[in-house]
This record gives sequence, structure tokens and C-alpha cells, in this order.
Amino acid sequence: MAFFKNFNSCWKRPVWCRACVAAALMTVGTLHAQTPQTDDDIAFIDKIYAQALGDGRCYPWLTHLTKQVGHRLSGSRGAENAVIWTKAMLDTLGLDSVWLQPVLVPHWERGAPEKVRVLKSKQYGTFALSVLALGGSVATSKKGVRGEVVEVKSWEQLKQLGKAGLEGKIVFYNRPMDATRVHAFDAYRGAVDQRVQGASRAAQYGAVGVLVRSMGLRIDDYPHTGTMHYDTAWPKIPAVAISTQDAEQLSALMRAEGRATVSMAVHCRTLPDVLSYNVIGEIRGSEKPRDVVLTGGHLDSWDVGEGAHDDGAGCVQSMDVLRHLKRLGYRPRHTIRCVLFMNEENGLRGGRQYAAEARRKGEFHLCAIETDAGGFTPRGFSFDGDEAVFGRFYEKIVKLQPVLERYNLKISKGGSGADISPLKEDKGLLSGFQPDSQRYFDYHHTVADVLEAVNQRELELGAASLTAMIYLLDKYGL
Amino acid sequence: MAFFKNFNSCWKRPVWCRACVAAALMTVGTLHAQTPQTDDDIAFIDKIYAQALGDGRCYPWLTHLTKQVGHRLSGSRGAENAVIWTKAMLDTLGLDSVWLQPVLVPHWERGAPEKVRVLKSKQYGTFALSVLALGGSVATSKKGVRGEVVEVKSWEQLKQLGKAGLEGKIVFYNRPMDATRVHAFDAYRGAVDQRVQGASRAAQYGAVGVLVRSMGLRIDDYPHTGTMHYDTAWPKIPAVAISTQDAEQLSALMRAEGRATVSMAVHCRTLPDVLSYNVIGEIRGSEKPRDVVLTGGHLDSWDVGEGAHDDGAGCVQSMDVLRHLKRLGYRPRHTIRCVLFMNEENGLRGGRQYAAEARRKGEFHLCAIETDAGGFTPRGFSFDGDEAVFGRFYEKIVKLQPVLERYNLKISKGGSGADISPLKEDKGLLSGFQPDSQRYFDYHHTVADVLEAVNQRELELGAASLTAMIYLLDKYGL
Repeated sequence: MAFFKNFNSCWKRPVWCRACVAAALMTVGTLHAQTPQTDDDIAFIDKIYAQALGDGRCYPWLTHLTKQVGHRLSGSRGAENAVIWTKAMLDTLGLDSVWLQPVLVPHWERGAPEKVRVLKSKQYGTFALSVLALGGSVATSKKGVRGEVVEVKSWEQLKQLGKAGLEGKIVFYNRPMDATRVHAFDAYRGAVDQRVQGASRAAQYGAVGVLVRSMGLRIDDYPHTGTMHYDTAWPKIPAVAISTQDAEQLSALMRAEGRATVSMAVHCRTLPDVLSYNVIGEIRGSEKPRDVVLTGGHLDSWDVGEGAHDDGAGCVQSMDVLRHLKRLGYRPRHTIRCVLFMNEENGLRGGRQYAAEARRKGEFHLCAIETDAGGFTPRGFSFDGDEAVFGRFYEKIVKLQPVLERYNLKISKGGSGADISPLKEDKGLLSGFQPDSQRYFDYHHTVADVLEAVNQRELELGAASLTAMIYLLDKYGL
Repeated sequence: MAFFKNFNSCWKRPVWCRACVAAALMTVGTLHAQTPQTDDDIAFIDKIYAQALGDGRCYPWLTHLTKQVGHRLSGSRGAENAVIWTKAMLDTLGLDSVWLQPVLVPHWERGAPEKVRVLKSKQYGTFALSVLALGGSVATSKKGVRGEVVEVKSWEQLKQLGKAGLEGKIVFYNRPMDATRVHAFDAYRGAVDQRVQGASRAAQYGAVGVLVRSMGLRIDDYPHTGTMHYDTAWPKIPAVAISTQDAEQLSALMRAEGRATVSMAVHCRTLPDVLSYNVIGEIRGSEKPRDVVLTGGHLDSWDVGEGAHDDGAGCVQSMDVLRHLKRLGYRPRHTIRCVLFMNEENGLRGGRQYAAEARRKGEFHLCAIETDAGGFTPRGFSFDGDEAVFGRFYEKIVKLQPVLERYNLKISKGGSGADISPLKEDKGLLSGFQPDSQRYFDYHHTVADVLEAVNQRELELGAASLTAMIYLLDKYGL
């Protein structure tokens, strides 16, 4: 790891005080009050799109990141290689600074493949289920655990079952994502509590393990891993995702046979934290270098598949934003920065570290945009921010709508991104790039999240959309 | 074919005169002048989406149409089976009428696989190119034709080459679709003239055959067939699409070696016209049964792949619109009709026949929507119409924007669809359903246009979008 030792030394600015941020805030609203969408803007954005679609680097970069680097869970060799390689790529772009920002990250490992088997079904005998341990799960003992399965669809039902119904049992959370929601992320938000909280809430009543129906809208055989949280008040019990297809089948079997017993063998372990890095590149602002417009994704992924949509796509898009602006000879007023955050999936350490460092340096993030919703066809940007400033900022942002509409992009209020969320208290604007959401949960956190699931044009269009938005934010301020 | 004989007898309305259409036009503007987007509308459209996403029939229907029926070029057994099966499905929906509308269609057959070989390249010897004869192409003689290849990028260049440069040669049209266009259909429109007109314009100067670079944005090995047109003033010469990858390679080879000679063997034939059918189902309007709101796609496809996106998707979506409305107990004011047009790909006979019949019966199409741009995630609807009425109608239509925006749908001015274009002169509104266009030309008219290229949610969302739009059009009129 000595390789990284001096990479962050190029960032040696004076430490600005919080007051500077406040001062920046006082003036930021007065920048360029004219309504955007001049012919110049359209001509420039047309050039961005032509370059992205005709000569984008996202797809070849993503090909390397997925096929040569592969998956890259925090603390893994893959993550280390991803840091080295993306920094090397940013170094080729002629930016003003490229550096690594150290951050200690958790180091969880899956270990040998987990196994969950239904035991002695009357109809099917003993057979394995398609499962993946959830990220952060503890291991079982070497011989595993076994228990009767209790299917649960709601927290209310769990509570009613209580200790009498759950002690020594394995809870099977089987509340599906609501496929009838138009926006797939709404469906995700309505079900993911089972994955995050399921283990501890079952352990509270003496359960010895949990199976969680995968967070996917399709019925298929891919288990979806993802992060979970142990409440320290209760014993840590192993937690495993089961594919939607096997969730349906296990449920059907229990209806048919009245009960099911499973054995679980899980071999995960949590090792000491590891030194890793956020990878950062920037074009320094000509007028207000301490005011930053950020585009970022997260470099880590889960330890299955190739992290193509989640979030290799967001990383290569953010990198290509800087490349597009450089190649078009754009000289930004504010600093345009690409940040590849480490450890979004299981800790958010990179995002927290980045925000802390920015504060220490007295930087103000005019707008931070995260692209972490897949490399699908762009639909728009949602905006968020501290309520003290958001209304005023959003009023200005919606003025960009007419020009963005030409490129099929819509501005809305809504969430932004996990990695940039720690910046919210600094009272800049936050934004989430919104590609179309319909296919995202076919791949998310599974072995199916591979390059082949990404369409080149859709991916490159994302970089074009981000570049266009960042150009407008830089030009017109807030 | 006797099977179909009496199927159209259930449509026995009196023949209304053209004056009725004019009378309808006089009143149509006064229907329900209130601005749509009541809570009732949103509640109803929410139900449509929930039903489409939770219990849509598009995907299982498309599975049958692609895997059991397969491709279905006009005049083929596949087309006949598609007519029988879709009518049978519509018959299960409890509609007021389902019928077949007879139409004579062209019957062109590819015959034995076409072969184009580069002869005696210095570097590569003799080798085959990935090709597909264009729809409607004539055959070569049994022993084929051979000639030196002349690469052409523009009509101007073709003209300059003239008879001196082209006589006895094989013209290779290699102007790519412009990948830098954001809207993929714009790129298509900018290149497809080579496919449609290329043969006759080359024959004019004595060329003996043409190779046309496939209409696709990717560099891959799938040749794209498609319709072409012979100008009767010039000899008919064989016309063949070449994959983008082989177009690039052939061009590179010619640059490297100075020239290339190819042999072409094409075995197509045009047989006598065949009796076929538009497949039609409707829910009759309670207030204005002779005013029709139409949703339609085309049942025929090219003779390769499975016609999944083009246009199996549009057919099953149009069918499911009626099913959704029936299942939700909606009683329309106007007649809601689903039309599966025959022969969009190589003749438009179904569309012309439909419009002629509608005129004969004195029907007025308040709005006809075509869904023929693939089963991708919905983006909106474009509207078109005769200029005498369009401005007034469009003014009303844009009032639907706020409610449609909730479902990620945008209203715009633009093209509609080939099958419904003959209705334009009747002065109703025409509309094209617009799914996202980015992936369409990866599949269009190739062996790759199969069920596996269709995402279930994206497909079902299309039916939901169409149902919502048709509900609003029916409720609020124009």
C-alpha cells in the first residue's frame, strides 16, 4: 500500500475557516442573474453531446474497470486496483490536480460461498436455495445453524409472533418490492428496510438467522446482496438474501407442506479497517477556485458481478465530464471536480471523509451531483439541499429547464446521493443524476451487474447530460 | 385461408357520408372544456399503472407472438398465424366487437440465404460478408453478379462518378447514421435514403448491384434489412444490407488494397399478392360511437428475428390498452379501438385499407396513436395533424401535460406513425407513442430483434402510458 503514500500531497491549499463558507454564501446568489439558454449555451451543449456520442470514453473505461479490475468491495484487492487505475486515467487528462484522499474503510469478506438448504421437504427432499450473505453479516458457527422457517411480511407481524413464535427460528422476510410503483426506486425504498433492519429486529425475539427476499422487481434466480445494520442491543445473527424466485418457491412450499426447515452456513468475517482512498481530479476555477461544482460516483462495489451499473457507470461518467470540458477548451469560473468516492456500499466512509476535508479547507460546494443510479438513458436531475437555502436555489435551477428539455432532461426536487449527503449541512445544492430506473433492480448488487448489461449510448449520454448540467451550473452560478 | 372468411361480417354499420365527419369536426372542439388533472383522473391513471405493472398481459402475449408465432412478413405463414392468434386473444377480452379487415398484401420472399463475397483480397483472400437482402430486392441471376466495389458517401459523389465511374460496378453506400444525434430516429432519418433510394439511383448510372451500410448505430455483425423502392425508370438491381462491422472492414480493405471486387448471389422473389387482414377490436363509445380513439401497431415484421420490438411490442400494448380499460370497468364516451395493421414494413396496405374503410363508414378519428418505436421505457407522445386543425387541437392537448408529467411522460409536436398517416387528411389528431430511442437501432430489422431484447417493465409501462393517454383523450375530447 506504500504505492499511495504521497499521492495526496499535491493538495496543499491553506485551511480556510468556516466563515469563508458563510461569506461565499452571501454572494453566491448574485452570480450571473440572466436567464440561461442563450444560443451560445445550446451550441456548446450540442458540442458536448456530439463529443460524448461520437468519442466518449465512458464505455472503453467501463470495459477496463469491469473486465480488468472487476468487482471492488472496500478493502479488497479490486478496490485497490480501481484506485490505482482510475487515478492513472485521470492523470492522462491534463487536469490541474489529481490526487488520492486517504480514508480508512471497513474490510468485510464473504469467505467461502454461503449455503442455505431446505431440509427434508416432503415433496422435494433436501435442496439448496440461491442465496448471498448480506454485506456485513456475521458467520454462522462452522457446522451452521438450522431452524424452522417463519415467513414474515411486515414488522407488525414480526411483533405479533414475538419470542413465542420466533425463538430459535429463521425469519424469512418475504415482502416483495411493490412492482406497481412507476418509479423503481420508490419500490426499493418500500422494501429495503427488511434487508437493513431485518436481522436485529428478528434477533430481538430470539431468531437465529434471517433470509431476506432479494430487492428486485423481476422473478429470477439472482440473489441481491446489500448492506445491513446490526443494532448492538441484540445478538448478531447471520443474514442472507434469497433470490426472488426461490423466495416464491419457499413460500409456496411452506403453504403446501405447512412448514419448512433450513440449514444455513455462512462464512463471512470482518477484518481490521484498511487504508483506501477517494480518487479526485479537478479543473481549477478561474474566478472562484474555492467554490466547487462536483460530479461523483462511488468506486467501490459489492463483491459479486462487476459493479458495472453500480457504480462503475457513475465513475466513468464523472471522469469523462472533466475530459469533455478539457477537450472542448472550457475554462470554468468555479472549480470543477470529479470525486470517485470509496466505500459507499458498506460504510460511507469516503463521503464523510471528503466532506470533513472540504470543511477543513474552507471549500464551498456550489453544487454536488452524484451519479449512482446506473448507466441507463438519462431522464434528468433531482435537487436537494438544506432547507435554509434550497427554495432560493431551486428557483434559479428551474430556469435551466428550457435548455435542458432540448436534451430530454427534466429538473425536479428529490434525493441526491449517499456520498454527497454529508455536504448537505454546508448549505450548497445537492443533486442526483437520474437515469431511467426501470432496469436498475434487475442488476443491482448481483452477479448480473456486468458490462454486458450496459448500453454504450445510454452510458455516454449520461456523461453528456452531466457535463451539460455542470457547464450551466458553472456558468450561471446559483 | 377460408378460416377468415366471415370474420369481418360483424362490422355492419351504416355507411356514413363525409359530411358527418365535417359535422363531427364542428363540435369536437367543444367537448369538456375543463382542464384535465382532477384527483379522479390521477386516481384512475394510478389504477391503470398498478394494473399494467402488477398484472399486465403484454409480456406473456409478446412471448407467444415471438416464440410461438415468430417473424411474420406480409404474406407469410407467420403473418397468417399472427392474425389468427391475436384475433383469438382479443376475443377473450369481452370487447364489443372484434373483427378482421381484409387487405391484399405484397408477398415478397427472401429465398435461399443471400451471399456476398469479397473476391481475392490480397490480404484476406476470398471471404463472405454479413449481409441481408433488402426487402423487395430482385434476385441476381443464378450465377450471381460480380463487380468492382465503388464506395459512396453522398448523392453528390454518386452523381460525380456518373456512368463512367459506375457502369458494371457494385455501389457500396457507406454513409453512417450520425451517432452524435441525441435522438436516434434523427440519425436514422439522416441515413435511410441510401437504403430506400440507393438501388435505383445507382442503376441510373449502370451499376449492377448495391451494398448498403446497415441502419444501426453500433458497430456489430448484424445486417439490418428494410424496405427499398425501385424507380420504374431504371433497371431493378439487387440490393443488400451489410453489417456495420463489415462495412467498416470493407472500407478499410479498399483503402489498404486500392480496390475490392465482390460477387453477389441473391434469391428473392415477389409472388402474387396475398389476402391478409388488419386485426381490430373495440369498446364502443357510449356518447359518440362514431368518433374513434385509436391505438395501434403493426402485426407484420421483417422475416428475420422475431419482430419483438418492431412491432410485436406495439401490438401487445395496443391489445392490453383495451384489456386494461375493460378490467377497470371504464365506459368510454368515444369508441376505443385497437388496430393491428398488416403490412407496415413493405407496403402500408393495411394502413391505407383501414383509412379507406373508415372514410367509407363515415367514422371520425378524434385521435389515432401509433406505437411502433419499440417496447422501451416510455418518454411521451408526439402529436401531428392536418395544419387546418392541428394548432387548435395541440393547444388542448398540452393541457394534459401536468397530469402526464407525474408518469414521466412528455407531450411534444412531431411525427406519429406510418400506419395511421393515411388518416391525416380526415383532420383528426395523430400521435406517435415515444419510448426511449437509444437502443432501438441495435435491434431494428435484424435477427437480434427477439423477446430477450425486451424488458418486461418497460414494455408494460408502454401499455400503461397508452391507456392513460387514451383515457384522457376520451374523457376530455379535443
